[in-house]
Amino acid sequence: MHKLYTALIHYPVINKQDRPIGSALTTIDLHDIARASMTFGVRGFFVITPYPDQAELAGQVIRHWTLGVGSRLNPSRKQALELIRVTDSFDNAVAQIQETENQPVTTIATSARTHGQTISIHALKQTLKAETPCLLVFGTAWGLADELIHRCDMQLEPISGLGEYNHLSVRSAASIYLDRLINGKF
Amino acid sequence: MHKLYTALIHYPVINKQDRPIGSALTTIDLHDIARASMTFGVRGFFVITPYPDQAELAGQVIRHWTLGVGSRLNPSRKQALELIRVTDSFDNAVAQIQETENQPVTTIATSARTHGQTISIHALKQTLKAETPCLLVFGTAWGLADELIHRCDMQLEPISGLGEYNHLSVRSAASIYLDRLINGKF
Repeated sequence: MHKLYTALIHYPVINKQDRPIGSALTTIDLHDIARASMTFGVRGFFVITPYPDQAELAGQVIRHWTLGVGSRLNPSRKQALELIRVTDSFDNAVAQIQETENQPVTTIATSARTHGQTISIHALKQTLKAETPCLLVFGTAWGLADELIHRCDMQLEPISGLGEYNHLSVRSAASIYLDRLINGKF
Repeated sequence: MHKLYTALIHYPVINKQDRPIGSALTTIDLHDIARASMTFGVRGFFVITPYPDQAELAGQVIRHWTLGVGSRLNPSRKQALELIRVTDSFDNAVAQIQETENQPVTTIATSARTHGQTISIHALKQTLKAETPCLLVFGTAWGLADELIHRCDMQLEPISGLGEYNHLSVRSAASIYLDRLINGKF
């Protein structure tokens, strides 16, 4: 059984001008990435924000769907949102996985652009098959800041389409990567 | 070059109790599926609703991003949303494609459940390679109503995850299917 985790970073990410910023929570990201994570057997989905008000907002959404009215209206949504752990930093997420799995974690950045060498989906699939705990890291806004990409152990190959255009939402990118890792043939 | 189109149906779809309903527009669906459609070389994305107020809302969103302030703030979003054609019925969407391509259209329903025989991604990829115009049809709410699935020429194989859980958002499902059709290896 693979030991795959996902993380959604709200700081440091970049804006349209390629400058590092912190982003606000987009609540649909929590739903979509939790549902995809649950579908593809992810063990935990870390929503990472250093901002206490944003963490509180995430907590309200999660409580509504896992404990409140939402949990009775939509039990499948409850199951998905139970995967979420709101955490204040990337390091804290890594530490939590390390403690749970009692093994070192491999961290994998995702980006629509290439920053140095990338690992293929095929190679990452082999790492997962070897039961190495892996954290797949996604950026909000215009993507992960270089600083965070460089702190990850590796970067996963970007998703290419048919032409130059490459502006998927983070919800789409996370879904595609998870499907490729679980169902992709090589 | 493939002749692929996407459609997002708001009526007839089903609710949680499996009854046919009409759904309200979720504006993020327009953005996410348009961006994925643009990335994977889709020729047009039909947003199908019979409700004039919902069609007007879709039009407002599209005008903001293709003609209004949004088009200057975010040109890549403009490009994606220009793919959208708001249409009142499935039949009208099929007729529009037929007129553009001057060829009959193959319509392919998607669903998380299987309704009779399904076509594999591999087989649909061959159909696309033969330059047959194809319309890939997605349902909002809890998915396409049987009535609409049966009006399509075929159903595409459902997306499976790792276990029983299978509750992807329509945004995730559309992104995964498009990636499989363009990038999937068999």
